[in-house]
Amino acid sequence: MEISQFVLASRPLGIPSISNFRLEKTVLNDLNDGEVLLKPWYISVDPYMRGRMNSVKSYAASFEVDKPIKGAIVARIIESKSNSFSSGDIVVGTLPWATYSIEKAETLRKVDTEKVSPGFYLGILGMPGFTAYVGMMDICKPVKGETVVISGAAGAVGIVAGQIAKIQGARVIGIAGSDEKCRSLKEQFGFNEALNYNASKSLRKELAILCPEGVNVYFDNVGGEITGAVVANLDFHARIALCGQISQYNNSKPALEYTILPHLLTRSVMLQGFIVSNYSHRFSEALAQLTKWLNEGKLKYTETIVEGFDNLPEAFLGLFSGKNLGKMVVKVN
Amino acid sequence: MEISQFVLASRPLGIPSISNFRLEKTVLNDLNDGEVLLKPWYISVDPYMRGRMNSVKSYAASFEVDKPIKGAIVARIIESKSNSFSSGDIVVGTLPWATYSIEKAETLRKVDTEKVSPGFYLGILGMPGFTAYVGMMDICKPVKGETVVISGAAGAVGIVAGQIAKIQGARVIGIAGSDEKCRSLKEQFGFNEALNYNASKSLRKELAILCPEGVNVYFDNVGGEITGAVVANLDFHARIALCGQISQYNNSKPALEYTILPHLLTRSVMLQGFIVSNYSHRFSEALAQLTKWLNEGKLKYTETIVEGFDNLPEAFLGLFSGKNLGKMVVKVN
Repeated sequence: MEISQFVLASRPLGIPSISNFRLEKTVLNDLNDGEVLLKPWYISVDPYMRGRMNSVKSYAASFEVDKPIKGAIVARIIESKSNSFSSGDIVVGTLPWATYSIEKAETLRKVDTEKVSPGFYLGILGMPGFTAYVGMMDICKPVKGETVVISGAAGAVGIVAGQIAKIQGARVIGIAGSDEKCRSLKEQFGFNEALNYNASKSLRKELAILCPEGVNVYFDNVGGEITGAVVANLDFHARIALCGQISQYNNSKPALEYTILPHLLTRSVMLQGFIVSNYSHRFSEALAQLTKWLNEGKLKYTETIVEGFDNLPEAFLGLFSGKNLGKMVVKVN
Repeated sequence: MEISQFVLASRPLGIPSISNFRLEKTVLNDLNDGEVLLKPWYISVDPYMRGRMNSVKSYAASFEVDKPIKGAIVARIIESKSNSFSSGDIVVGTLPWATYSIEKAETLRKVDTEKVSPGFYLGILGMPGFTAYVGMMDICKPVKGETVVISGAAGAVGIVAGQIAKIQGARVIGIAGSDEKCRSLKEQFGFNEALNYNASKSLRKELAILCPEGVNVYFDNVGGEITGAVVANLDFHARIALCGQISQYNNSKPALEYTILPHLLTRSVMLQGFIVSNYSHRFSEALAQLTKWLNEGKLKYTETIVEGFDNLPEAFLGLFSGKNLGKMVVKVN
């Protein structure tokens, strides 16, 4: 059958654009035994995928030029030659950005979409949720009464990380890019405070006022000047989970910044660069606990849903201008 | 009795100078019960004391203007009104930079100077040695076959840290500021390789050639561009003990540098800012193990000895231009 797929047309230098993607037609083979035919339903776009567009060695393999972009996708089984799945089942896996695809059954995991939005398996019950869980529980370990700051707080990971810190009894301050996001963080997600970095004259000073005794935990999703402002407010023995650096992903060379190392030294700060796949042994606990908190109403989640397969590149690019509140997903009809 | 002492005359802005110190006369009180009269013999000058000349909040209390500079000193008991010490005993303690001083006996620890140089209690068997021990054993934890890089390798801490890593079976590369220091590191202290950053066109590239599989452990004493060059070569799951930042101590504001955080993120690096006093529960083990290695000939140590009490400020200032090989101490006759 003929399908459409997005391939990497060229590697971006700096900010990626629509022209780095190409929509093309191709033909699927017939199903072999043990394989299934899938139709994507919810497709994830994630900041880490920007790194995969480069050719440099990193923790995730590079996308290849002229080959399909791949990522987390919730899909419906259309046809099955596997005993594991039946037509109509909903599964999650790492699949090509294509209108249909054929996969081996063992690479897929069945999910229950009756109780939760299918997109949640790309967010709070998927990689971003696991990232928030192990980053907060295994690295940051906030305790009752500590002050936790989260950058990129209104994103797919930040919203969960902040709520987990709240559940641990911490006071949580989110940093986000608009007043609307800040309002949501406080009203919808229970953050104690939220700061709009785009409206701030001095994030460092505003944080100092909000955190007179210093910041104990910093969950960093963005890097750059925002991180500099938080680091200046760290208390002794603070912990930093270095989870994302979205402000830097489109730089063609490292940015010049004021050094933070002397401050990390004199404050005895621990920083852990952190890739969720390092913690795969923790995923079953994370999934169970996040599901429980979600069912109990202790965790809330939200998605920004872009409709239409053709809008995948645009949705992805929107991550870098903060177009999403919560998880950005593309829904395919 | 009349004594001489160095007081902090003024706080330096940027590079300190002789004029920040003032030698003045003062008079000691009579001895009370439980006190001893001390004559300093070996006086420690240490990079961390630069931070104490500032007024900013840090892990060590600031020196006060017009009050004596204090630091680690090996001293001889001249007169004792304590049952713990007799005249002639050699002790180590935190004492003023003075020709004589009176201290409470319980603040002092007796040391044996028959087998080791008295100055070693300010170096390998004192704070710098403990720093190297806990930094390497508790934070970096190198294992056999790993590659360890040490900046400020020819300093009081670096020389010990490198040899401890060697004892653990690692391959050790030192970075120092002269060909002479590099030669000593290799010939006298058993480092596998040593790089002179003052003679290097690209430390990053030279390290890349020496470490084709990447750097597993970085023990940082200096910060700045040297640290940038090492970080660019870190392997996945590398550990950084952030022990010193001597290249930055004389900056009146943070230096602009290329950000290292994206690299720490994608390489899953752990960095621990690290003050030896956090690890006081480890000192007895450190002292026992360092003494054992020293006696077995597995650890070697060296000192740069400046003669004469009056030369204390100059010896201290020399730390910032790399005048020392091993521990810088001032010997008083």
